[in-house]
Amino acid sequence: MPFRDLRCQASRCPDASPLAPGFSVGAWYLGEADGRFHGTPLEADEVEARLEAAVSLAGYGGRGVVGVEASYPNEIHEGNLDLWRRALDGTGVRLAAVHPHLADDLGGALAHADDSVRQAAINRTAGALRLAREAEADLVAVWAGADGYVVPFGTDVVERRRRFVDGLAEAMDAAPGVRVALDAEPFEPRWRPLFGPAGGVVLARDVEASLGADENCQRLAEGHALVTMNPELGDGMEDEGDLPGTLAWSLAEGRLAHVHWSRWPLGRYLVAPGLDAPTPMEVGLYALRRGGYRGLIGLDVHPAGAPPVVALKVAMDAIRAACDRVNGLDLTALAEANDGRGRVGD
Amino acid sequence: MPFRDLRCQASRCPDASPLAPGFSVGAWYLGEADGRFHGTPLEADEVEARLEAAVSLAGYGGRGVVGVEASYPNEIHEGNLDLWRRALDGTGVRLAAVHPHLADDLGGALAHADDSVRQAAINRTAGALRLAREAEADLVAVWAGADGYVVPFGTDVVERRRRFVDGLAEAMDAAPGVRVALDAEPFEPRWRPLFGPAGGVVLARDVEASLGADENCQRLAEGHALVTMNPELGDGMEDEGDLPGTLAWSLAEGRLAHVHWSRWPLGRYLVAPGLDAPTPMEVGLYALRRGGYRGLIGLDVHPAGAPPVVALKVAMDAIRAACDRVNGLDLTALAEANDGRGRVGD
Amino acid sequence: MPFRDLRCQASRCPDASPLAPGFSVGAWYLGEADGRFHGTPLEADEVEARLEAAVSLAGYGGRGVVGVEASYPNEIHEGNLDLWRRALDGTGVRLAAVHPHLADDLGGALAHADDSVRQAAINRTAGALRLAREAEADLVAVWAGADGYVVPFGTDVVERRRRFVDGLAEAMDAAPGVRVALDAEPFEPRWRPLFGPAGGVVLARDVEASLGADENCQRLAEGHALVTMNPELGDGMEDEGDLPGTLAWSLAEGRLAHVHWSRWPLGRYLVAPGLDAPTPMEVGLYALRRGGYRGLIGLDVHPAGAPPVVALKVAMDAIRAACDRVNGLDLTALAEANDGRGRVGD
Amino acid sequence: MPFRDLRCQASRCPDASPLAPGFSVGAWYLGEADGRFHGTPLEADEVEARLEAAVSLAGYGGRGVVGVEASYPNEIHEGNLDLWRRALDGTGVRLAAVHPHLADDLGGALAHADDSVRQAAINRTAGALRLAREAEADLVAVWAGADGYVVPFGTDVVERRRRFVDGLAEAMDAAPGVRVALDAEPFEPRWRPLFGPAGGVVLARDVEASLGADENCQRLAEGHALVTMNPELGDGMEDEGDLPGTLAWSLAEGRLAHVHWSRWPLGRYLVAPGLDAPTPMEVGLYALRRGGYRGLIGLDVHPAGAPPVVALKVAMDAIRAACDRVNGLDLTALAEANDGRGRVGD
Repeated sequence: MPFRDLRCQASRCPDASPLAPGFSVGAWYLGEADGRFHGTPLEADEVEARLEAAVSLAGYGGRGVVGVEASYPNEIHEGNLDLWRRALDGTGVRLAAVHPHLADDLGGALAHADDSVRQAAINRTAGALRLAREAEADLVAVWAGADGYVVPFGTDVVERRRRFVDGLAEAMDAAPGVRVALDAEPFEPRWRPLFGPAGGVVLARDVEASLGADENCQRLAEGHALVTMNPELGDGMEDEGDLPGTLAWSLAEGRLAHVHWSRWPLGRYLVAPGLDAPTPMEVGLYALRRGGYRGLIGLDVHPAGAPPVVALKVAMDAIRAACDRVNGLDLTALAEANDGRGRVGD
Repeated sequence: MPFRDLRCQASRCPDASPLAPGFSVGAWYLGEADGRFHGTPLEADEVEARLEAAVSLAGYGGRGVVGVEASYPNEIHEGNLDLWRRALDGTGVRLAAVHPHLADDLGGALAHADDSVRQAAINRTAGALRLAREAEADLVAVWAGADGYVVPFGTDVVERRRRFVDGLAEAMDAAPGVRVALDAEPFEPRWRPLFGPAGGVVLARDVEASLGADENCQRLAEGHALVTMNPELGDGMEDEGDLPGTLAWSLAEGRLAHVHWSRWPLGRYLVAPGLDAPTPMEVGLYALRRGGYRGLIGLDVHPAGAPPVVALKVAMDAIRAACDRVNGLDLTALAEANDGRGRVGD
Repeated sequence: MPFRDLRCQASRCPDASPLAPGFSVGAWYLGEADGRFHGTPLEADEVEARLEAAVSLAGYGGRGVVGVEASYPNEIHEGNLDLWRRALDGTGVRLAAVHPHLADDLGGALAHADDSVRQAAINRTAGALRLAREAEADLVAVWAGADGYVVPFGTDVVERRRRFVDGLAEAMDAAPGVRVALDAEPFEPRWRPLFGPAGGVVLARDVEASLGADENCQRLAEGHALVTMNPELGDGMEDEGDLPGTLAWSLAEGRLAHVHWSRWPLGRYLVAPGLDAPTPMEVGLYALRRGGYRGLIGLDVHPAGAPPVVALKVAMDAIRAACDRVNGLDLTALAEANDGRGRVGD
Repeated sequence: MPFRDLRCQASRCPDASPLAPGFSVGAWYLGEADGRFHGTPLEADEVEARLEAAVSLAGYGGRGVVGVEASYPNEIHEGNLDLWRRALDGTGVRLAAVHPHLADDLGGALAHADDSVRQAAINRTAGALRLAREAEADLVAVWAGADGYVVPFGTDVVERRRRFVDGLAEAMDAAPGVRVALDAEPFEPRWRPLFGPAGGVVLARDVEASLGADENCQRLAEGHALVTMNPELGDGMEDEGDLPGTLAWSLAEGRLAHVHWSRWPLGRYLVAPGLDAPTPMEVGLYALRRGGYRGLIGLDVHPAGAPPVVALKVAMDAIRAACDRVNGLDLTALAEANDGRGRVGD
């Protein structure tokens, strides 16, 4: 896909056209996992099987899956690009993002203090940028998970941020013209990430200010954001920064190139949205229905921001809508599907 | 309403009939607040105005409001019972619960270490039980908020629980035959409550074991629960104990006489369900729509408990359903309603 | 106190001299509270009594209290400045911060959409700046609590941030030369604040870029930060952004003029640090000691970042140090102080 | 160790003798991990190496390690009991707990709906009880992690609890006279556990009521608890139930046979207590010292439960004590130990 123009995001005057998103899926979870942070290269037939799974979801329920994201070089690399092209050609599914694998097989990432380790991470990032340009991927997503920290004492966060900024700029200038999106996950795999959704916007500005390659500078001069955001969204992240504010801020700078959506029940496990439980309201109402509760629902509210009667109407509407969803559930099928016999998910 | 038979809850074989709940509202929030924990008595015309507001919601969107809950003696008492009867007669709205006001005007509650303070709380609870019997209210709800604690050092939790159990049993035997429901709020107004939803079930058993009045013993002998639960439910309470497990457990003992529903954004503020934001998913999608985002939604999932393709379909369905809700919002009206001019809620 | 030079913070080469902080206290909590967000002016004798309480803590246990912070105009104003000078003169306690009262009596604050409301907030902020200059206070602390929001739908966060930045710059240029520190509380009193600790640094940069008064521009040209941070720190805020990273970042820009320290048990209540419970470890060990536990403590650890034997030594040392603190507690005195007789704190 | 008498816990009149705990360590983390939930049996030399590591901590800093806990049959079993005896004999370290391995290699645990899977779990639990009796271990710890659930819809929590209670009673009657301690972890490895610390006490009562073997009934008749608690404690669990209340309740029933101590930064990672960061207070003060902060610490407090001046003294004392700890840190050594070069923990 050619370089996409996001400048309209910053206009602050969007049309009110409805959302009808296409989805992208990660090649890393479309088959048997070998661990989330290890980068064993996939065999060709395994890549083909995963792309087949992705393509099977094209058009699902609307636009369905229109993109695949892949980790470089363990899932996509210079040697299997033809395979990717053949698998996706004519399917309506494109290569949406290339992720340089910056986790443990390198021994560290862009902020690592050891020059040789950090240089390997820079080179890998540059390789991902070159491949993305060659393959016309939408963007390269950079996740700094390995640059976070567990022990706050002794860790020089400022120096680590500086190394990250300089390292990413060096990689981008080595393979210019490709947009980067910063993955901002709130906590894992270390105690604290190098940056969260708000801090990422600042680092994005700082990386752009450090770019020197002609093609990059020209993009910036035209008002395009080159370092953009790919925030991690999802239910269960209520405590992880100001969701609407962070999105609004990224959009106001024309800097929201991609989003990742997941679900973190209790903030701990990353599962598929909708898979475990839509909301506590529905979980609770299901428990009431399943248990044969026939009593009243008392509304114990503090009607902040609305007159009591209005607030109560909103509350009754919300609970009744959830009742509708819960009443639509097939209790027998659910009981059979979760009968306590399985190894997982029960 | 006559004593309700909840024993069917314990049968574990409920019919699968859908939920169509009636709602009850609290008289304490239907007008200007004078503080949540202070019990200034209401004037007669203020009581009438609040009951009028409650009755205006009878039949709202279905069954709507069918019950009012009132604090004793500041909202309902021996002297204004006729006023209550006149206001509710023929409206389809009944007196659903009487709450003895056990907060700061007494200087303490059922677990207080000062005998005279505690006795005043016991007497007030007995008064509420008598009034509830007289007025045929569904039950008396007992909230032990003032019995929680802030400082764990030196606080004798076990002794406090014993005082609560004995005090509540004394009050129930003084005005027998009325069902009690224990309000189990997870944290406020003290750092820690005397009991949470799970611990409340145990205290309920212990109170029942301490009852001695004939009428109470007969109810128990017939298999009725006399000390039941009124758990606080609501989005934002994900971390406060095992919601489905707690409800299931109460139901399995025929002990779920009432529920209170609220919403605690971030676990901190108790507002009306649905008023602020249904879920982070909808908040995020709204921010994307409002900000003119036209990019992909990447599914960053760990498909626990389901094959990847199934998990992805569930995720796309869930996000699309949320898109439908968000696309149905009137952006202009919302912007006008939240234009940053108000004193509250903006 | 004259304008303080913070540029050394940015040198990244601090000496390793130990912390020996002086403390500042808020005039707003040194007497009977009239509510946290309402600004009823204090009588002169009440101001004197509060300052006397502050001065009584000068030198407490070391440097003790060396500063008082005051809300303008309800606690300090043009008409009682002499009273403040007399009360503090020669005591070693100075006026550390002036807080323009930007809460509900104005009907809104710097980001309010109603021009007249917002202008009143700007004027009050300018008044606080003038008073701080006259009184040689260290700085003016600006808290944007009233500019946060509860309802995310329809709220234009970007516009609200713009109004805040422009309004603060207008006030600062009207009374130039005074340093501002942004109070960054993580959530209250609204669902979401206008900015958190990380976002505040960006707004600080943006406000500085909007300043035009000569005296302000000269300070900036000399490398001084004029808009600095006053982050809210304290146990119970683990989830509210990256504490070490945020502090390191502010310091790296020479922008950490003040800190506020509190304690939020469960993230909900703001109490005095150390008052309720140092840590869950000490709470638990106290419960074990009080309850007569004589069993083993099993170490159920995952020794991330250290060899098991090293991690176990660290763990045993940490628990034993906590045991020492808990063993130093006077169980009898604690039991008497928390005997369940009081109205608060029991 | 012979059957320990815990009845004194219930006397509520403990002496005030200080805590001087001995520690126990888990054989499962004393070497290279093969995954936390998989039970590959260890070779004899690996067992020896782990026991040697445990013994090396005997007497560390006081009593140090006095117990080892082991998983059955992968770490301890009928075939290597002599090896265990030789390794521990005369060392002052005893076998503190045997944990039947009830995780994924069985395909489920005591609450599993498939009779053959559940029977295998019962048999393994009985095997662990027999081994514990033979080896004179303090107790058998039963962790119901695999019996928790992810999907609340369709899961019959009540039935699952019943199966757990009956299954555990069956195992205990098959190898009577041995005390069981229920591990109560708050959330993992499933979304929700079968029971938390409060619910576990109730299940303990229910299991005891189901026991029938003579030796078990006799112990109960003498007032001993046979099903006791082994709650998971640790900083980072503030939200997971009422820590002091839960411990007090278990102790009041003479039912606290063991505790597990860990640390969960942000409630997510289980690491060694003290390893990452004692408290946010110390983390913040370290950041201030490291960054060269020389300003004031403002006390932003709400002096709940104490007069302001008392609360402020407590707060200053607490912060100063933390300053002492932070000032004792060797900044250079810490910087070297966390220089960003490592693979883990940096």
